[in-house]
Amino acid sequence: MILDSEILQTQDSRYRATLINSLAGVKQAFLIGSKSSTGHSNLAIFNSLIHIGANPPLWGFMCRPDTVKRDTLQNILDTGEYSFNFVLHTDAEKAHQTSAKYAEEESEFAAVGFGEQCYEGFSAPFVSEAPIKIGMKFEEKIDIAVNGTILVIGSISFIDIDEKLIAPDGFVHLDQAELLSCSGLDAYYETRLIHRLSYAKTDKWPSKL
Amino acid sequence: MILDSEILQTQDSRYRATLINSLAGVKQAFLIGSKSSTGHSNLAIFNSLIHIGANPPLWGFMCRPDTVKRDTLQNILDTGEYSFNFVLHTDAEKAHQTSAKYAEEESEFAAVGFGEQCYEGFSAPFVSEAPIKIGMKFEEKIDIAVNGTILVIGSISFIDIDEKLIAPDGFVHLDQAELLSCSGLDAYYETRLIHRLSYAKTDKWPSKL
Repeated sequence: MILDSEILQTQDSRYRATLINSLAGVKQAFLIGSKSSTGHSNLAIFNSLIHIGANPPLWGFMCRPDTVKRDTLQNILDTGEYSFNFVLHTDAEKAHQTSAKYAEEESEFAAVGFGEQCYEGFSAPFVSEAPIKIGMKFEEKIDIAVNGTILVIGSISFIDIDEKLIAPDGFVHLDQAELLSCSGLDAYYETRLIHRLSYAKTDKWPSKL
Repeated sequence: MILDSEILQTQDSRYRATLINSLAGVKQAFLIGSKSSTGHSNLAIFNSLIHIGANPPLWGFMCRPDTVKRDTLQNILDTGEYSFNFVLHTDAEKAHQTSAKYAEEESEFAAVGFGEQCYEGFSAPFVSEAPIKIGMKFEEKIDIAVNGTILVIGSISFIDIDEKLIAPDGFVHLDQAELLSCSGLDAYYETRLIHRLSYAKTDKWPSKL
């Protein structure tokens, strides 16, 4: 079936949003923790983490200004700090529930039942259940003019990870941490490693590492 | 184990690149097809597709200027068209092999053994084996000053998809298409749908759809 731009335009807007968003692929689920300038903790699920570069270590994520997740953006701009928390796939419901429209002063940690963990010298809260936790420092906000979406870029301040998950060459075995992935706004997945492959060269076929 | 920015800085650059890139999560694998202004077909694997918005339908992807995949960027800028092709997980090796540094005039389709498919009125080539194919029109290039990475934004021209994969509300069952996901530069995954959850509301717990 071919869906061209004319057909897409005539679709109900909610149907089209579900289609285009879920079609964009299965992605890692992350909970972003932040604190407001008045000290309220905030937690929200995102799936748009983008690797920008490793030297310096930079990651981005997309923020749509028309969602409840604008609390996250405002907190990041106010405090300069936030956390990325990986999610166990057994915590899918709790993670999803952070997307409910809680009042700004209500902590999603308490509302959905995640433990709140802090690191000395870092203002943003972390999810204590998260098997991998990453402290982020805000670097740059890029406005995408065409639809008002915002790309938030931050540098990695620190990573709290079980060293057993890291292979000798630096590869992180996310497959061994039972992590949650998702697509669109409501579908949750688990992932299974098939294999790693050798560096691709034009004169030979890749082999399993 | 805590890896702070000082520890990260002292790591070997290849180790750190593998660590930071693979840690960024499991993502959907896509093959991007494009054609040069001189008519050479190009195919390259990417995993950084970003949902930007559904109205109009816009997706982005990240392009690092220091990789062989710059052919893809140049072709997109020259022709204004490109294709996103989902990958069967049985095609992981062929998809990975597109990342080898083939000469600009050599087609990765022929080199790795994917079939090349065209649509009337659209210049960019598609992977005939891809269970979902998407024609893209270039819209905007955003330079990320901090490390020279480029966000390429395009609008969806058309989607070629088996209608059986689309649920009545527009949700795309990627789980039923046996698709390939990946992390970092060399690890390949398959995904399994756990469940979809109902729209989150503050006064009730989400239920399975």
